[in-house]
Amino acid sequence: MVRSVKGLIELHGDTEREVYLDSENSGLIFPEALEELVKAYSVAGYGHPSITHKAGWESYETLYQASEKFSILNTSPVELVYTHGATEANNLAILGSAKANKTDRRKIITSSIEHLSVIFPAEKLQEQGFKIVKIPVDGEGFVNQDQLENEADSHTLLVSVGAVNHEIGVIQDLKGLVENVKDRDSSILFHTDMADALGRIRINLKELNVDLASFSSHKVYGPKGAGLLYVKEGTNLEPVIHGQLSSQKLWPGVENIPSIAGFAKAVEIMDKLDKTKLTKLRDKLIDGVTSQVEDVMLNGPKGSRRAPDNVNLSFLYVEGEALTVELSMNGIYASSGSACTSRVLQPSHVLLAIGRKYEEAHGSLLMKVTPFHSEEDIDYVLRHIPQGVARLRSLSPIKRR
Amino acid sequence: MVRSVKGLIELHGDTEREVYLDSENSGLIFPEALEELVKAYSVAGYGHPSITHKAGWESYETLYQASEKFSILNTSPVELVYTHGATEANNLAILGSAKANKTDRRKIITSSIEHLSVIFPAEKLQEQGFKIVKIPVDGEGFVNQDQLENEADSHTLLVSVGAVNHEIGVIQDLKGLVENVKDRDSSILFHTDMADALGRIRINLKELNVDLASFSSHKVYGPKGAGLLYVKEGTNLEPVIHGQLSSQKLWPGVENIPSIAGFAKAVEIMDKLDKTKLTKLRDKLIDGVTSQVEDVMLNGPKGSRRAPDNVNLSFLYVEGEALTVELSMNGIYASSGSACTSRVLQPSHVLLAIGRKYEEAHGSLLMKVTPFHSEEDIDYVLRHIPQGVARLRSLSPIKRR
Repeated sequence: MVRSVKGLIELHGDTEREVYLDSENSGLIFPEALEELVKAYSVAGYGHPSITHKAGWESYETLYQASEKFSILNTSPVELVYTHGATEANNLAILGSAKANKTDRRKIITSSIEHLSVIFPAEKLQEQGFKIVKIPVDGEGFVNQDQLENEADSHTLLVSVGAVNHEIGVIQDLKGLVENVKDRDSSILFHTDMADALGRIRINLKELNVDLASFSSHKVYGPKGAGLLYVKEGTNLEPVIHGQLSSQKLWPGVENIPSIAGFAKAVEIMDKLDKTKLTKLRDKLIDGVTSQVEDVMLNGPKGSRRAPDNVNLSFLYVEGEALTVELSMNGIYASSGSACTSRVLQPSHVLLAIGRKYEEAHGSLLMKVTPFHSEEDIDYVLRHIPQGVARLRSLSPIKRR
Repeated sequence: MVRSVKGLIELHGDTEREVYLDSENSGLIFPEALEELVKAYSVAGYGHPSITHKAGWESYETLYQASEKFSILNTSPVELVYTHGATEANNLAILGSAKANKTDRRKIITSSIEHLSVIFPAEKLQEQGFKIVKIPVDGEGFVNQDQLENEADSHTLLVSVGAVNHEIGVIQDLKGLVENVKDRDSSILFHTDMADALGRIRINLKELNVDLASFSSHKVYGPKGAGLLYVKEGTNLEPVIHGQLSSQKLWPGVENIPSIAGFAKAVEIMDKLDKTKLTKLRDKLIDGVTSQVEDVMLNGPKGSRRAPDNVNLSFLYVEGEALTVELSMNGIYASSGSACTSRVLQPSHVLLAIGRKYEEAHGSLLMKVTPFHSEEDIDYVLRHIPQGVARLRSLSPIKRR
């Protein structure tokens, strides 16, 4: 951070309506989740859960009650490790299982479309002699089952495949993938990044038979600063950072109980939520844009194989980041790919992996519909996207054929 | 976490007054800091600070404005790395400088009274061939300057000494320590854990000439889930976990902007606070107990060389953890040593390092007075500590001589 952007914000000014579609990168919170957080700060969550006094016991109980809410996923409180987000949970899963590894298994398998907080720690392990294999995906983003099966062998320590892709919303056949891997060798650990699956698809961790699964609070409209790694009982893992332990063993430091209480509340709300409303908004947005705009491609699959909130479109002859600015001027907040990728102006590795060309990936717009959105919000967006795309195309030096 | 403690809390019941003295482990929040946090969740801090839309710019600006507030410490926003607490900041400082090290410097010097989030990562580096030297302290907790000077040599990568000790409140002559080390070899990095110094003593990072300094939000009565590592420009550091970067380079994942905004607010409040009020409450508590109770020892120095909020007393013939339960029954919340130590019932390594015997360390009671406390609160505590100690001594199998 080197300078203020106050002037830019003033210049931007207010808009007729605001539609926040960038929950991929960060987002709004359920009011009930914020209430839980505030309550924990002032009543029964400000103490340290492993200390012997009433405030400590109340904090422990608040944490315990939050942990109980995750039984929705068929898990028990002893299997939960709280971190501060999915990035930390993914790092703990990957670096932690490598640290705990006492065998000569030196292969880690992942896919070509994983989140960078899975890919980067895995690649980092190459420095320690690990071999990283990235299984390719098809044009819709589905992991190649045969290749995964062929790679999963007695040298494999860990397989990490996300349940729902953060950029293109593809829902993997996770149960099938886990079964294939465990059939080949039951000692292989299976980790799955479920940050974008939680609240979107039904999750039963025991049934899926995964060993490790990562979750994020802000992705379910809970408070920031809370994440979770599910660690199946008996799974060998070592911590990545070191210090004082609180009520759990693998991430030192006092738990962020207010955020965790809000996180659990958000999970509870999402569980009860009617997902068909999201799906309807999603398809209204996809169909509305593709019927109005030429030279646009949907990234990822359609229908029930796609996350109910995910819309990812590539506009040819348009620079995605310019489109996000254009839309922002009308109060519509979306991103072009995920945060880091967009920051460094690299095309998304996910879009390249499903076969998009460089310029197609560059023209992508990622939007996530949320429980906060109405039909009117989508109508508003559907008025402005075609206008924005048309304006940018008229200015673009990249001419259409 | 294996079971609910609801029954225990009901059994405990309510008390005439509640005096929360356990800010060492976790604590209350300034209402103004909580307001900043809530505001950031709902207005200008829910976006991702590196994304190109108004909500992103507002979040960036919120983060920037928070970062500017740390100029109180004579630092600039580019030198700040936000983590989720001092544990992460200490780990980044120690593991991160070891990872970045391209020299044959393989010695890390620390003190025998550091926080476990300094000692544990340093000790972990022994597996990678690092030599860890812990400089002893005197009976009040001051680091032995001569021994530090002798150990600081051309093989030394890093020295890490906390500015204010978390358990016994000793304020080190940090400027003197840094000067001595840098005089011996200016290439040696100096890290200091300032979690318990922030808001308690005057801090000027440039004047101190440290390279790395850790801070914690909850220790200044800010929100949980925010910490900070000051990294002097030009200091070589590598990340400990890997993933998408946001507006800063060394701790991946989106910043917890609401907590950071509250953290900065808390720092601002603490800066303006009259510390003499704290000192007065501290001494009232120390003097009140030591004048009423026999066989009690103050751990750490007296007067201006002690943190204005720290009270640490060892009661002979009393088990400290039993005393925390006894006091809790009267609404007084304190701890016996720091969280982990108390959890595993190990005597505090800090108290052993200043020469306390095993049983003296075991009988310790750590209390921190805060801006939330009044004279009446301390009067209340001074009525109950002598009673509690007397009751436990009457029950104790360890008889007094």
